[in-house]
Amino acid sequence: MLRNIKIGMAFCGTAYHGFQRQNNSVAVQNVVEDVLSRLTAQRVQINGCSRTDAGVHAREFFFNFHTDNAIPCENIIRGGNSLLPDDIVFFSCEEAEADFHARYSCRGKEYLYRIINRRVRDPFLAGKALFYDRPLDAGLLSHEAKCIDGTQDFTSFCGALGMKEDCTRTVYSCTVVRDGDEVDLLISGDGFLYNMVRIITGTLLEVNEGRIPRGDIPRIIAARDRTLAGRTAPPDGLYLNRVMY
Amino acid sequence: MLRNIKIGMAFCGTAYHGFQRQNNSVAVQNVVEDVLSRLTAQRVQINGCSRTDAGVHAREFFFNFHTDNAIPCENIIRGGNSLLPDDIVFFSCEEAEADFHARYSCRGKEYLYRIINRRVRDPFLAGKALFYDRPLDAGLLSHEAKCIDGTQDFTSFCGALGMKEDCTRTVYSCTVVRDGDEVDLLISGDGFLYNMVRIITGTLLEVNEGRIPRGDIPRIIAARDRTLAGRTAPPDGLYLNRVMY
Repeated sequence: MLRNIKIGMAFCGTAYHGFQRQNNSVAVQNVVEDVLSRLTAQRVQINGCSRTDAGVHAREFFFNFHTDNAIPCENIIRGGNSLLPDDIVFFSCEEAEADFHARYSCRGKEYLYRIINRRVRDPFLAGKALFYDRPLDAGLLSHEAKCIDGTQDFTSFCGALGMKEDCTRTVYSCTVVRDGDEVDLLISGDGFLYNMVRIITGTLLEVNEGRIPRGDIPRIIAARDRTLAGRTAPPDGLYLNRVMY
Repeated sequence: MLRNIKIGMAFCGTAYHGFQRQNNSVAVQNVVEDVLSRLTAQRVQINGCSRTDAGVHAREFFFNFHTDNAIPCENIIRGGNSLLPDDIVFFSCEEAEADFHARYSCRGKEYLYRIINRRVRDPFLAGKALFYDRPLDAGLLSHEAKCIDGTQDFTSFCGALGMKEDCTRTVYSCTVVRDGDEVDLLISGDGFLYNMVRIITGTLLEVNEGRIPRGDIPRIIAARDRTLAGRTAPPDGLYLNRVMY
């Protein structure tokens, strides 16, 4: 019988050229498929819930694959984790319905963008957060971020590679919270455009810097013009945080 | 006038073959000396407070160097941090007395050994902690660790490379504390032998596993025999945490 296996994993993306399989560089998908192919003695192809860019991380990422191998789910976790490099880990494995697809069955996602706001950087968070040494008004960012809620055409927050598609998405919530030196942007929605969270973060930082006026975000969204929004924040601080099914 | 400059830095040691200058691989010292030589336009040699092994980290590490260049301390920090890779950071810089030497003036050090005790590893702490998936009794370790206090001959906790010297050291305090999934060993003393903290950690873990009997540590110390102590824990979890002058 063909099984449909759903696996939950987390990975630190620093060493990888994103999730999606690459021919000339190492992606998370290459590594995971190689491990599962060894465990099942079959050529495994996985469906990821999301592409992620080079250097982007996942605290929660789901994928599914089909196999007729009878290996128990528990052994996939244990065997997988013993074969995976230490920056990728499987935390769950279960039998899914035949029609489950990690990407098409997904109802929503939450991303986290971590900003460390201090004078000197933290060498232990290199690649894992954005260091920002200017004064940062998290209250202002939180207020500005409210305008990003709702069903809107987010063309202005879409990177060049995603421009061909319909850019309407629903953002459930976009909040900014400070905890000591760390300022976290948390954004959830039914789907995200290419580079959308990184452009939203860069835009909020430009509001903080006065390069974009306060209260200007609704106008930027309405204009459907990428050039009006701010810079694309680096991948280092971006985490796929939660995937909803 | 010849200045004696004292710098405080932190570094993530994962990418380096320890602090001490190497000819065939990259050590922290190579990188720092290259940066300071560029800043001062002189060939700079630094005196570190400690050697550290490959993969070992420092939350606080001091070194000193001499120069007749007039560059202000503040510019050394700012310029240094702009030239250093993002896993090394200068956090302080000051003029020291002429006889200050980062190693010989040191009165004591504190090391931290981080153990993450959970079933699945954390991909974001790869290289930065020891993952330990068996049950770990922090209370037992804390009790056993008390025997390590005081002025004693620690030959049994000295790695092969350090065997020629006098192995008497004074440990001021050795404690083990659990905070959620994390179990931290904190040890301070006037000096440490080669691999001493890693062997103490490995020995305590073997007591936890029942491979070394409870209450056996005084006997192991008294025997002055490395083969009676436990394994050498990996470098990943070890941090030079504080340096006392």
